[in-house]
Amino acid sequence: MTHPLLNHARAALVMDGDDLVALIAATFQNVYYASGFWSFGQALSRTTQVYAVLPRGALDRPAVVHGMGEADMAAQFPTVGTLHTFGTFFIEPGDAEASGGDPADERLRRYVVEGAPLPSPEEALAAALEAAGVRRGRVGIDDGMPVEVLRHVQRRFPDLAVVPAGRAWRTIRAVKTAEEVRRLERAALIVEDAVDAALAAVREGMTEREMAQVFDAAVVEGGGTPLFTVIAFGAHGAHPNAVPGDRPLRGGDLIRFDVGCRWQGYCSDIARTAVFGEPSGAQAGGYQAILQGEEAALAAIRPGAAAADVFAAAVERTRASGLPHYRRHHVGHGVGLEIYDEPLLAPGVGAQLEPGMVLEVETPYYELGFGGLQVEDTVLVTASGARLLTRGDRALRRV
Amino acid sequence: MTHPLLNHARAALVMDGDDLVALIAATFQNVYYASGFWSFGQALSRTTQVYAVLPRGALDRPAVVHGMGEADMAAQFPTVGTLHTFGTFFIEPGDAEASGGDPADERLRRYVVEGAPLPSPEEALAAALEAAGVRRGRVGIDDGMPVEVLRHVQRRFPDLAVVPAGRAWRTIRAVKTAEEVRRLERAALIVEDAVDAALAAVREGMTEREMAQVFDAAVVEGGGTPLFTVIAFGAHGAHPNAVPGDRPLRGGDLIRFDVGCRWQGYCSDIARTAVFGEPSGAQAGGYQAILQGEEAALAAIRPGAAAADVFAAAVERTRASGLPHYRRHHVGHGVGLEIYDEPLLAPGVGAQLEPGMVLEVETPYYELGFGGLQVEDTVLVTASGARLLTRGDRALRRV
Repeated sequence: MTHPLLNHARAALVMDGDDLVALIAATFQNVYYASGFWSFGQALSRTTQVYAVLPRGALDRPAVVHGMGEADMAAQFPTVGTLHTFGTFFIEPGDAEASGGDPADERLRRYVVEGAPLPSPEEALAAALEAAGVRRGRVGIDDGMPVEVLRHVQRRFPDLAVVPAGRAWRTIRAVKTAEEVRRLERAALIVEDAVDAALAAVREGMTEREMAQVFDAAVVEGGGTPLFTVIAFGAHGAHPNAVPGDRPLRGGDLIRFDVGCRWQGYCSDIARTAVFGEPSGAQAGGYQAILQGEEAALAAIRPGAAAADVFAAAVERTRASGLPHYRRHHVGHGVGLEIYDEPLLAPGVGAQLEPGMVLEVETPYYELGFGGLQVEDTVLVTASGARLLTRGDRALRRV
Repeated sequence: MTHPLLNHARAALVMDGDDLVALIAATFQNVYYASGFWSFGQALSRTTQVYAVLPRGALDRPAVVHGMGEADMAAQFPTVGTLHTFGTFFIEPGDAEASGGDPADERLRRYVVEGAPLPSPEEALAAALEAAGVRRGRVGIDDGMPVEVLRHVQRRFPDLAVVPAGRAWRTIRAVKTAEEVRRLERAALIVEDAVDAALAAVREGMTEREMAQVFDAAVVEGGGTPLFTVIAFGAHGAHPNAVPGDRPLRGGDLIRFDVGCRWQGYCSDIARTAVFGEPSGAQAGGYQAILQGEEAALAAIRPGAAAADVFAAAVERTRASGLPHYRRHHVGHGVGLEIYDEPLLAPGVGAQLEPGMVLEVETPYYELGFGGLQVEDTVLVTASGARLLTRGDRALRRV
């Protein structure tokens, strides 16, 4: 079974470069990325433990560590590699014939009947390392692993050198596979459609909260899970993380959307700006400036370009196009299983863009008393430059 | 300004008992609990850093540490205590008159004009400790603090002894304030109403995914944020974390809901079971057993009862009421800013229940080939016993 999320070539490259015999994943995103196992529990609560061991020589055979309470996740969605469980959770095996050959039921029944969960996550992780043949050499560990788990691993494998590798995971994940690009495109389109639905519902006096509910309902209808919904009217739009409230929509108000959803694990983060009525000169002119800035970033994106150069191009063009005082600390970021993947398009970031990176490109402008202007789009870095994955109207929308 | 989430009496008790001069919060839930500051960023991504320092002698004056990119969260929602910021984020102060005296704008303008953010989270945390007068003695630290932040604190304050205190936070938060109970009740009711909406939309052949979309839309309409939506038809209900899929609803199917939302930071986690058509004897009898088990748990809940005794009462009654082979590892858990707050109603847990605890009580039954039966309700522990915060029909629903 192949696993379409993991970038095998890049994982091999990074592990060779850092001389790692294996990488340990400890976040639900990295575990899903390495193995296809989605930890329902850790996605809800950071206290749920889940791990994957990805051995350098066997990227198709990660070892996954999860609690018995999540055995059904592996049963419902086949996972590559081997599974190592811990803890107690009761599911009655029932009558095999009643399952009518359902493969998810069959897999879960095997767990229930034949599974031998270990008492603790650290023991299961040690068993996973043992099974993966990871007993000596340098092993890269993910961010946020509990101290007691690390201590147990080091006691069990004295010849294993444990080195921090959160950055290695981020470096591998920065270049997407075709399946990841497909999911990111879908996550972006769900949000774009939901923006259209929200704008179609516009009426004088409606509140930010009401529009946010229309938006969230449209995300749900599109099959996504709302991740964050910044919808702000008028001056409230100057608050970057504006929480939709009771402010009613009035003629001439800017409407700023900075919104995202998750679809099959993958995130989107899109921004659009509208005006309720006729835009003022400052609104139209300011928006034109940030749109030109975004265009400059898109034009600067190509394999080999430094992230910092894309930043400089965007800020310079925004300043030249109507907002001479424009200031910004980044003009975008990678997107993937996390809203902020690598790289960051920011000053001082020398990282070079590569084909297969997927970026959110944005040039937001926040001014107290005036409001917020923002445009943000998902783009794929290709051999010939930036290809937009979003499809909607990026102009200042008039509703 | 008072802060209605923090249980002052209990915080003082725990800090006295553990001889702590202060507690540091490092999760968005604990920071919100201590100060009212909601980290938009950390709620989305665990890599965003946010802290609160809660000094034993000044529980009304926590020091909050957050990035400048979240300054607007403190501006929109006034926070108790002092604020210490780090990092760079540009918001133009604009024209004060254009804000028309809006207090959130005024607060954010002060940040922008007068704020002096420090370069890093660890420096801002050190400044917060300094400002709070926490320079020596034992300070309790939250789970998951980055190692470099802890090292910086220890270098800056050599007379400070840093001790793990994740458990102290959980112990404090286990007994709710009136405002917390109000929010938990609302979060539960939003989900109960959404279950009713989903069942009202029932039709032969609809898929789990379609019903889940009706459910999620109803949560959104109720003002909540969907947290998790397990809706499973027929045998799929035996998968505890069943992910709604393409399975169509057929006559005689069980429909198992295990669902939750967040409302103003607070979580719900409710379960209901329905049958599409006439229940079989096994369906009706099994459900009656788990409902009797839940009733036994509710009857056993009173101040001073041990969590393990509530567990024993529920399992014993379920076995005696029609499921003699019933096995379970817990029959519920606290609920609050996290879905799993303390205590756990499980064997071996000696913790005694106290008035003000809010619990999810549940007696799920999973059998492969048959499906799942579950009932779960939110209850408040009062001086006289358990008071249900849920209001809906807990019987096996027939649709």
